[in-house]
Amino acid sequence: MTLKILIHSTQYLDGTGREAEKGYIVIHGDRIAEIGPGDCPHSRSDFDQTIDGTNRLAMPGLVNVHGHAAMSLLRGFADDMPLHAWLNDRIWPAEAKLSPEDIHLGAQLAMLEMIETGTTTFTDMYFSMDTVAEAVLSSGMRAVLGRGIVSGDGAGLALKEAEALYQAYHGAGGGRISIDLAPHAPYTCTADTLKEVMALAEKLDAPLQIHVSETRKEVLDSLREHGVSPIAYLHQLGFFAFPVTAAHVVHADEKDLDILAERGVRVAHNPGSNLKLGSGIAPLLAMRERGIIVGLGTDGAASNNKLDLFEELRLAALLHKGTHENATAIDAGTALSMATSQGVKALFLDERIHPNLGTLCVDAPADLILLDLTSPRYVPRHRLLAHAVYSSSGCDVTDVFVAGRALYRNREFMTIDQEKVRFEAERVGAKFHTDTSFSAHS
Amino acid sequence: MTLKILIHSTQYLDGTGREAEKGYIVIHGDRIAEIGPGDCPHSRSDFDQTIDGTNRLAMPGLVNVHGHAAMSLLRGFADDMPLHAWLNDRIWPAEAKLSPEDIHLGAQLAMLEMIETGTTTFTDMYFSMDTVAEAVLSSGMRAVLGRGIVSGDGAGLALKEAEALYQAYHGAGGGRISIDLAPHAPYTCTADTLKEVMALAEKLDAPLQIHVSETRKEVLDSLREHGVSPIAYLHQLGFFAFPVTAAHVVHADEKDLDILAERGVRVAHNPGSNLKLGSGIAPLLAMRERGIIVGLGTDGAASNNKLDLFEELRLAALLHKGTHENATAIDAGTALSMATSQGVKALFLDERIHPNLGTLCVDAPADLILLDLTSPRYVPRHRLLAHAVYSSSGCDVTDVFVAGRALYRNREFMTIDQEKVRFEAERVGAKFHTDTSFSAHS
Repeated sequence: MTLKILIHSTQYLDGTGREAEKGYIVIHGDRIAEIGPGDCPHSRSDFDQTIDGTNRLAMPGLVNVHGHAAMSLLRGFADDMPLHAWLNDRIWPAEAKLSPEDIHLGAQLAMLEMIETGTTTFTDMYFSMDTVAEAVLSSGMRAVLGRGIVSGDGAGLALKEAEALYQAYHGAGGGRISIDLAPHAPYTCTADTLKEVMALAEKLDAPLQIHVSETRKEVLDSLREHGVSPIAYLHQLGFFAFPVTAAHVVHADEKDLDILAERGVRVAHNPGSNLKLGSGIAPLLAMRERGIIVGLGTDGAASNNKLDLFEELRLAALLHKGTHENATAIDAGTALSMATSQGVKALFLDERIHPNLGTLCVDAPADLILLDLTSPRYVPRHRLLAHAVYSSSGCDVTDVFVAGRALYRNREFMTIDQEKVRFEAERVGAKFHTDTSFSAHS
Repeated sequence: MTLKILIHSTQYLDGTGREAEKGYIVIHGDRIAEIGPGDCPHSRSDFDQTIDGTNRLAMPGLVNVHGHAAMSLLRGFADDMPLHAWLNDRIWPAEAKLSPEDIHLGAQLAMLEMIETGTTTFTDMYFSMDTVAEAVLSSGMRAVLGRGIVSGDGAGLALKEAEALYQAYHGAGGGRISIDLAPHAPYTCTADTLKEVMALAEKLDAPLQIHVSETRKEVLDSLREHGVSPIAYLHQLGFFAFPVTAAHVVHADEKDLDILAERGVRVAHNPGSNLKLGSGIAPLLAMRERGIIVGLGTDGAASNNKLDLFEELRLAALLHKGTHENATAIDAGTALSMATSQGVKALFLDERIHPNLGTLCVDAPADLILLDLTSPRYVPRHRLLAHAVYSSSGCDVTDVFVAGRALYRNREFMTIDQEKVRFEAERVGAKFHTDTSFSAHS
């Protein structure tokens, strides 16, 4: 059945950077059929559902361009540790205990949090990705999924799984799922593995996502091993002949950024995770000056520890003003676009799904959210665009639609059994503590 | 009437940096009478009120050590502008339009937001402070108030008002209000004005709060005008012979920090505001290495644009890890203490009110909050201390007690008429736009 939904009397931000207007939005099936200022000219009886948008702000759903959903199960399991000890001593041993069922559950937990805070599209690079794809299908979210690939004993199998994932799920859910190939990083993949992945990308015509230049150590190691930076190394391998979403790009010099700009590489900026892991601060302004498309990501919940893109967009807007001592750097409209339309482009979803995904306009996919404006933090309503970036909280989200389907209505989850997921996630979380080599309170 | 309240079956963080425990808290009158793990040994009938703390986290109320409450009315009025244009062209002309009634209202609006997000004590440096004091008295919050003083025509009157404020309100509300003297900054106060303020501080035995070294420009101007940094200049004047809370301290060199440490100056760190105004990043680690006591502040809502200390404590924990490329810098316990017990010390409230204000322990003032842990962001509960810092949101606050009185119960305001304040604040906010030299959408 093709539903026709009217949201009336609502403030809305169309996601182009324009200031909010008061008007109405018509959703028909999976698309926005009408949007405009003022009153809806049609009779209410023309609609299957009517939503009063008074004291609501409608805006495009947020797009999370980098993450590892099931790491939600490891949230708070290990914090305030140096990156390599964190990975080697805590995260990787814990991940080794995750079953496919756990990963399905962890993805559901992550989706609960992302839906609750207004994300409509997310990205996941992990393993047991078929179970994640199933979780995405039933959740109603839009997602870009990639089977993480590292060199070593499991690489051959991982490549097979990556291809199988593409064949089974690319375009599934009425186009809600897109499949990427996801070699983990230049330091965890050999040149041979990267070449195999590139051959597969060629065959499938699939974009690539990869972690690059996340830490200073990674760059120094690359210089020592390859004589060039990780970005220059990937460039030499021909990696950037493919559409690539490069996650992090914290430690990149001018030449690196020139390569990314020239090759049209898209960047996933994860300011919260980069700060929390002590990785540093990505050169966002230098990227944007070169016209590099940058979206925002949370990374996994174990290194953030939230999956709330409202936090990231506020942080992105604040952080680069501060580090550049320039209050005009990354204005509100720019920050919001990074979490919406630029995020779409960073994932090549403008080409894969719809050129206007991430904005509210006629014919765009109806991926949109409503925020409750009754909190004191939205008073007075001088500029709702600024409020949406600087004053908002993910908690203000009341409704989430993806492709016209309500995933969250009046703060109730419509597609995921929250109680069950929370209960099961606590049970699974406890198993990381049964091994005496782990101590939750160390 | 002296109420006896039991909070049972609750997780609690005592604010000392210790991990959460499950237990109970007894509030008797304005104090914590008992707190401990396990079940309460007393009969439920011994209590006037019983609160089920299941799925709740009790913790000390947060302490906001720097702000300008009524600037809530200017939230979102001017963003993404250089500091001096922001002040000269937008903020100061708008502030000139604020009546005492507006400031009362703005303080109420700010308190709504602060209560809603778990702040129990706040600091306010502004004008028409008698109306703010009245708003604080009826709100039930704890506050440190100072009449802002700048040199010029109004300085004499401001000094008189500062003294009158002290005489009328210091210790009012059963000790909830403390009065500081608040010369605005070394660049807005002449040496003569600062000396007059110091004489008054001597007379009243009142601590001082002042903005210092917020921007690079301020430091350069001071070097040009006085030949020394703002901190060295204040030191030369004998300013630090008094108890001082110095707000910002973003641009401070080793010598400056040595002065602050040696003189026992307390610092109000405002990471969000410092980033948003492009001021920079304060040398928090260098301060803490010297043993300088640092609390966290939001600054005014016009430069943040929130008054949510959960944002600031997360930001403080993340930001300094990132800038120092050290994931062990400012751990969760440290960040939380900066927003609680260290904040109390930063305002000299350990001396003025109670040595244990800002922690949960027997005999401490019952300033505490409850957080709802049912959101997916608290799952799994590996470490609630980490969750409270890295995963929490101010929106999770359900209950706020100050001196044993409930200001917020089950997300309902008990002392401020939210609807009225919101309505009036929109009306007042609109008046900034009637002057054609202002444009809300420029």
